[in-house]
Amino acid sequence: MEGVSSEAASLAGHLKLGNLIYIYDSYNITIEGSTSLAFTENVRKRFDAYNWHVLEIDGHNFQEIESSILEAQKVTDRPSLIMAKTVIARGSACMEGSEESHGAPLGPEEVRASKEKMGCDRDADFAVPEEVYSVFRRVRDEKKKVYDSWKLKFDAVVRDDLKRKWDMFFTKPDLDKLRPKLPVFEAGSKIATRAAGGKILEVLYRELPNFIGGSADLAPSNKTMVKNISESGHGKVGRIIHYGVRENAMGSIQNGIAYYGGFINFSATFFVFMDYMRPAVRMAALSGLQSIYVFTHDSVFVGEDGPTHQPVEHLAVSRAIPNLYVIRPCDADETVEAWNCALARNDGPTLIALSRQNLPVIDRSGTSSAKDLSRGGYIIHDYDTRDVVILSTGSEVHLAITAAKNLFTDNGIKARVVSLPCWELFDNQDESYRKRILGEGNKRVVIEAGIKAGWEKYAGEKALYITVDRFGCSASEQDIAGYFGYKPEIIKDSILKYVKSS
Amino acid sequence: MEGVSSEAASLAGHLKLGNLIYIYDSYNITIEGSTSLAFTENVRKRFDAYNWHVLEIDGHNFQEIESSILEAQKVTDRPSLIMAKTVIARGSACMEGSEESHGAPLGPEEVRASKEKMGCDRDADFAVPEEVYSVFRRVRDEKKKVYDSWKLKFDAVVRDDLKRKWDMFFTKPDLDKLRPKLPVFEAGSKIATRAAGGKILEVLYRELPNFIGGSADLAPSNKTMVKNISESGHGKVGRIIHYGVRENAMGSIQNGIAYYGGFINFSATFFVFMDYMRPAVRMAALSGLQSIYVFTHDSVFVGEDGPTHQPVEHLAVSRAIPNLYVIRPCDADETVEAWNCALARNDGPTLIALSRQNLPVIDRSGTSSAKDLSRGGYIIHDYDTRDVVILSTGSEVHLAITAAKNLFTDNGIKARVVSLPCWELFDNQDESYRKRILGEGNKRVVIEAGIKAGWEKYAGEKALYITVDRFGCSASEQDIAGYFGYKPEIIKDSILKYVKSS
Repeated sequence: MEGVSSEAASLAGHLKLGNLIYIYDSYNITIEGSTSLAFTENVRKRFDAYNWHVLEIDGHNFQEIESSILEAQKVTDRPSLIMAKTVIARGSACMEGSEESHGAPLGPEEVRASKEKMGCDRDADFAVPEEVYSVFRRVRDEKKKVYDSWKLKFDAVVRDDLKRKWDMFFTKPDLDKLRPKLPVFEAGSKIATRAAGGKILEVLYRELPNFIGGSADLAPSNKTMVKNISESGHGKVGRIIHYGVRENAMGSIQNGIAYYGGFINFSATFFVFMDYMRPAVRMAALSGLQSIYVFTHDSVFVGEDGPTHQPVEHLAVSRAIPNLYVIRPCDADETVEAWNCALARNDGPTLIALSRQNLPVIDRSGTSSAKDLSRGGYIIHDYDTRDVVILSTGSEVHLAITAAKNLFTDNGIKARVVSLPCWELFDNQDESYRKRILGEGNKRVVIEAGIKAGWEKYAGEKALYITVDRFGCSASEQDIAGYFGYKPEIIKDSILKYVKSS
Repeated sequence: MEGVSSEAASLAGHLKLGNLIYIYDSYNITIEGSTSLAFTENVRKRFDAYNWHVLEIDGHNFQEIESSILEAQKVTDRPSLIMAKTVIARGSACMEGSEESHGAPLGPEEVRASKEKMGCDRDADFAVPEEVYSVFRRVRDEKKKVYDSWKLKFDAVVRDDLKRKWDMFFTKPDLDKLRPKLPVFEAGSKIATRAAGGKILEVLYRELPNFIGGSADLAPSNKTMVKNISESGHGKVGRIIHYGVRENAMGSIQNGIAYYGGFINFSATFFVFMDYMRPAVRMAALSGLQSIYVFTHDSVFVGEDGPTHQPVEHLAVSRAIPNLYVIRPCDADETVEAWNCALARNDGPTLIALSRQNLPVIDRSGTSSAKDLSRGGYIIHDYDTRDVVILSTGSEVHLAITAAKNLFTDNGIKARVVSLPCWELFDNQDESYRKRILGEGNKRVVIEAGIKAGWEKYAGEKALYITVDRFGCSASEQDIAGYFGYKPEIIKDSILKYVKSS
């Protein structure tokens, strides 16, 4: 019933995934009662429509289970669905076929009665008969032999270069060797971080043969298309996956790929459409999977597409997921470092939020290197002393720096600017580092084109918040900037007023 | 391709919604290119499987469009899908059938060339010929006559009681008249807020004939089943809707019902499964729709089902959505008031987060009435002076009160307890009210079984946070309470230590 199953099955049929076999435990019971309450579609016909091979069996008949799997394995040009008709709680004394056995234990009395019905001692503790042990021992030994013989064949047959490739797929890439190959951007030039991300992807696809990924039908906008890389299509799998407009399946398939191992994989869509795949993102975080998300169009600066396409709460709701690294780079250089962090992670997913609009590559002479992104937050503009500290991320950092420079030139106000692209990494630093970066005193300004929630932990209650605490609106990028106050002059004036009044 | 369309179409076929007609603008183009990149399923067969009536037409042929709609209207025992084969950007000079015309304007030169191709003046400004105006004027006049004659018939034919019912459906219920009929709970008795919610629903279904709703296959757990109310089923619609395991369609259908008007409607599922319907919840908030959500099993106290079923970040991510009221009642009385707020709202959705576990009905003699929930937050336990202020919501409030009482009895520490069930309502109060409730001074404690993020705005950086800043775990309710520190004794000791040290 869940939509994600439709998305995934449609794509699997399209790709002709002949190795895929679903076993559908079809007992026609849901928590509310019979599936006839809410579900009367023709499942066989639906999977036919997806171009699946469909089998129907008695799910309590072991021979039918085995023979149907063998048959499904022979069909290699389509995925197979084995519809196994079953009865829920089969064998129990009174709860066979009842929804009451769906979400709750049978209870001690029903367990005793069921044991009796099956010819077991109704009062005996849970016990496994010796003949069951012996069957499992035999099967285990047989499987061990199969594995050993496969292993011998595998080690003997594969040519050396294939073996090296195989081992390489299952080894973390050497990021020190990768670094000199990553693109370098000219300070002062302008490039959207999504475009910088695209240039980085070109290198990753070229240098890492096990690097794969794709977009939910937004590749031209996400800048995730790379030339001369194999693409998925009707009946074929490639390193660039065309997921179609199926975000939740995309995220879930990503997790499956990550569980299997051997690949580094990313997905892409507009940041606001993360809502469609939130269950998959949460599962990646909960399961500690290296799923990587490239979410572009990361703020109201999306422009004309309007509030349905403009994330405002999405940074906050992403940061809320435990074990998810959320990185919002301020320029092309930080985008390189964001990818470095994502590739280095072993224990969970990384979300990289990228801008639609062009951003200047920050001139870092006399200030920190973008490499400090690995510490989550760092000083990107400073003076010997200071009157106020500005905390910012992503596309608002260059505005903060310009405002800070003008504040000093025009008004003699000294404002430190901190780039805070990844809260999770920053919170992992020791207290002395965090205190050094955030500075002493209470005069703090937060500039981020998203809701304020969560920033209070760094800036306190009395800070000046230049945030977007409402849904966005449809207008040109420039009009949006003016309307929400994201122009250097407006920012400068607000900070000046704030510093003088507080 | 989106899963939500599969969920909705499957349910529509099941309910045999003969009035529903989809027109599928089938131009085989997506943003990445031809749909053949990612989508080759047989749509006709899929909708056949959902028990739809399917028609295929040339979508550029006006006669076929009209005749297919007329044919679809005649089929009243199934929804109809009209697959209208079209060419994207048809008529344009060079971009017919190209994905380049999907997400971007044609551009001035292509517009000029296209005008020329269509036999118009290529340099003329946008102009509507007089014959178009005259056709539209004629159609408008014809439709006006149809409407006027319908209106006469409607006013004349419907019996008085039906007319009264009709008008009543489109009028806000009188909540003052409803109040005395709502259930009253005995102070000190124990009842889960989900169960209290169930008792309230009984009254709402009985007293409000236009009250409808249902669960995504969790009604027995959400406590949303009410006896003697019509239920939806195969080919029939009822006031209790069995949505099946289709959260995103549920939320979207809710929005459709709210847009249409005439009904007050709710949906229900486990709080953690809100992730599946997040796009629909955001749309309700953005569109100002009165969709009401009953999300039960609202914390780690879900117990054995474990972290996949235990919300931890969901209060924070719900509060992050602009214009969504998030209410987490602390007991049965606050649950009544939460429903009152939800029914009173005209301009947006309300989320009511309810407990799985039993909670004592707070003894409110000598303290505020639960009616103060309408102000978002209020003092629920207090002393003439105080050493610390505890902020709490939902199932943790009674623990806070017990800890406060013991702190005074055992240690002479005076702790105010503030119940803060709805941040949005609280933030709407004037500053003096908020200051009075939160009290002076910096010693504050937050007790909520969810992540800390966002609470800093009320409690500051130096508060004591008794929160759950990680994924949950599978254990009994009692073991969970011990492990995460939600027992009155543990809470008391933590506060004592905090008050003495700070």
